[in-house]
Amino acid sequence: MTKAKIDAQRLLGRLDAFAAIGATQGGGVNRQALSQEDRRARQLLTELAQARGFTVHQDAIANLFVRRTGKDSSHAPFLMGSHLDSQITGGRFDGVLGTLAAFEVLEALEDAGIETPIAVEAVAWMNEEGCRYQPGCMGSMAFATGSIPDGWATLRSNDGRLFRDDLQAALDALPQAAMRPLGFPIAGYLELHIEQGPSLERADVPIGIVEGIQGTRWLEISIKGQAAHAGTTPLEFRRDPMAAAASALSELYAEIMPRDARARFTVGKFVVAPGTVNAIPEQVDFTVDLRHPQNTELDRLVSFIETTCTEAAVAVGCETHIRRVFDMAPTDFSETLLDEIRQAADGLGLSYRPLLSGAFHDALFVNRVAPTAMIFVPCRAGLSHNEAEHVEPQHTVAGAQVLFDSVLNILGKLD
Amino acid sequence: MTKAKIDAQRLLGRLDAFAAIGATQGGGVNRQALSQEDRRARQLLTELAQARGFTVHQDAIANLFVRRTGKDSSHAPFLMGSHLDSQITGGRFDGVLGTLAAFEVLEALEDAGIETPIAVEAVAWMNEEGCRYQPGCMGSMAFATGSIPDGWATLRSNDGRLFRDDLQAALDALPQAAMRPLGFPIAGYLELHIEQGPSLERADVPIGIVEGIQGTRWLEISIKGQAAHAGTTPLEFRRDPMAAAASALSELYAEIMPRDARARFTVGKFVVAPGTVNAIPEQVDFTVDLRHPQNTELDRLVSFIETTCTEAAVAVGCETHIRRVFDMAPTDFSETLLDEIRQAADGLGLSYRPLLSGAFHDALFVNRVAPTAMIFVPCRAGLSHNEAEHVEPQHTVAGAQVLFDSVLNILGKLD
Repeated sequence: MTKAKIDAQRLLGRLDAFAAIGATQGGGVNRQALSQEDRRARQLLTELAQARGFTVHQDAIANLFVRRTGKDSSHAPFLMGSHLDSQITGGRFDGVLGTLAAFEVLEALEDAGIETPIAVEAVAWMNEEGCRYQPGCMGSMAFATGSIPDGWATLRSNDGRLFRDDLQAALDALPQAAMRPLGFPIAGYLELHIEQGPSLERADVPIGIVEGIQGTRWLEISIKGQAAHAGTTPLEFRRDPMAAAASALSELYAEIMPRDARARFTVGKFVVAPGTVNAIPEQVDFTVDLRHPQNTELDRLVSFIETTCTEAAVAVGCETHIRRVFDMAPTDFSETLLDEIRQAADGLGLSYRPLLSGAFHDALFVNRVAPTAMIFVPCRAGLSHNEAEHVEPQHTVAGAQVLFDSVLNILGKLD
Repeated sequence: MTKAKIDAQRLLGRLDAFAAIGATQGGGVNRQALSQEDRRARQLLTELAQARGFTVHQDAIANLFVRRTGKDSSHAPFLMGSHLDSQITGGRFDGVLGTLAAFEVLEALEDAGIETPIAVEAVAWMNEEGCRYQPGCMGSMAFATGSIPDGWATLRSNDGRLFRDDLQAALDALPQAAMRPLGFPIAGYLELHIEQGPSLERADVPIGIVEGIQGTRWLEISIKGQAAHAGTTPLEFRRDPMAAAASALSELYAEIMPRDARARFTVGKFVVAPGTVNAIPEQVDFTVDLRHPQNTELDRLVSFIETTCTEAAVAVGCETHIRRVFDMAPTDFSETLLDEIRQAADGLGLSYRPLLSGAFHDALFVNRVAPTAMIFVPCRAGLSHNEAEHVEPQHTVAGAQVLFDSVLNILGKLD
């Protein structure tokens, strides 16, 4: 069964065809969720599917499903996929690679005349990027919960469009895709994606087997002191929140990541008020993005960060106010599916390494309702969310073939 | 000669009268340079001067001089004063205290029928604050150099007014004030001012004898790294300018001020780009305001700051770009005048302490052309540039009396 191959040239050609939809001058892609470009991509996938005799469905949140039936059509289907939407200055691979590789698996099954025990489907989840409309992963989130949060209907895009209207327009544009309930049962889910980080390329390994997604905590930390004149205020009269922040952050940068290679500590936002050259600041506000695969360690690190900031502030007469604004627990993917991916890679003679995803993916949400796993392929210099995003053709092909073989392995167990 | 006293109630009443010109709801003053309010204050001072038979002059930059003649009218006059303009949400004492105390000295001399050997003048320098028009200290700067920089004529205020027009209007509004050359010779200059810092109040000392003004250097420091995903980028692939800045600043805060009580190190402006919670910053830009009374130490500290930032950046794969944008050398005031102030305070039984000014003052510029010194009085909680700025009446009176006695001591040597 594992002798069947995907059609490498077809897959690479499809990637080129989709990269032309929303192509940017810089060689990237701007195909934001529910935009005209996104609708054209959904249209193209639907046409390709119908040309192969596959059926196409969508649900109320405009997730798009391409179905190749199997022996037992009443059984929950096995899903593969990713997303078709991109960042504003996005690349040619983020999302679309996993969606088109999933579609290629369906085509390769069809080419080889393989009858699978259950239906296999390729899915394009709606709005993974969270670019025009926030939050990201809307489609997979609504699928996993089986409902659309009330607040989403009245969301507005950056260009003033109402989410409800854009969503309806996208649904209406595909009358050939039959409507389907939101959050139907599935047998499992595999997602191929680019790594969006440099580890695989640096290690010269073509396949990453993603064992889970790191947990993420976001903190908003305010340190309040007292604005005063930079020239007239001696040290003993200063209550300088900038000094407190520098002291605390220096300690945190030196401790958290150097001590634990799995930890990620990032201060991406830092605002100083009033913000003039000759005034000691009144207040600094900054964010912390903390990631780690273990929830207990996230708990410990959050406490450590809070204590460090509070102590540094107290030491210079300042006050801290810390808000825990976001908490996404770590996700462990299905050991059964991971094992099938390892066997598939072994069978193909491809080297691989285990990875944890530091970024969110649709798989994070699908994992809540079915066995799920992800496969990563290297991207050049780890660059993503960037027009220069690039995946070597052999890595694209290797990733899709691992996906194909993994699916066959998984379905073989059902037969 | 030192038995004569200033009229405390008159001085306090004058301060109230001037505080009413541009009074704010918050109990402060908004009397920005060359505004309607500033013109009304100049008008009032002129009327008060003429009522006492003093002559009033102005120069091309609208510095305003009130002259009480002495025995030798051909000799360069001795000047006292400060400014009448305020910050937008300024206080009732910054500047106007020194101007009205100088005027009170003239009146007290007149009341006591004292004939001074040379003329004594009270001056209100134009635009010390640099609020509507930058730079500050325009009047004293132009006086010290004897010319108005070409660029000033075409300056525009925040509310769109042309500096040239506002200046001419202020001059035209006082036809009774005869025009005088810019930068005429003077015998010396004394300025009474509020401390704008907390040292005197905390020490419970009514008089500060200001021995000089600290030198100031401003640096603009950019650290450039590489923006990357907060979740997917392990430590060894990070080039995080925020980590570099935290490390460098933590070291600088711990070294510079704790090791030298005369040093002032302030980071008032700090901007992070792109500035999103889940992205490692591409670049951080911050300012350093560094002050010290010794130029050699300023040189050493600037090098130390540059080295520390550069090394911290290099350690995490970032680059620094450092611009030295401002350099004001330290000023030592006249030892002769300082000694006269000490003797005056001793004679009045007032305790005093030596101070260095961390802020700029008109005296900084006047010191370039004549022996100059300053007297500070405490302000509540060190607050200034604030509507809550407050000076206790006994400190106002003590400061003005020290000014009066100092001037008599100085002029006594000439007699």
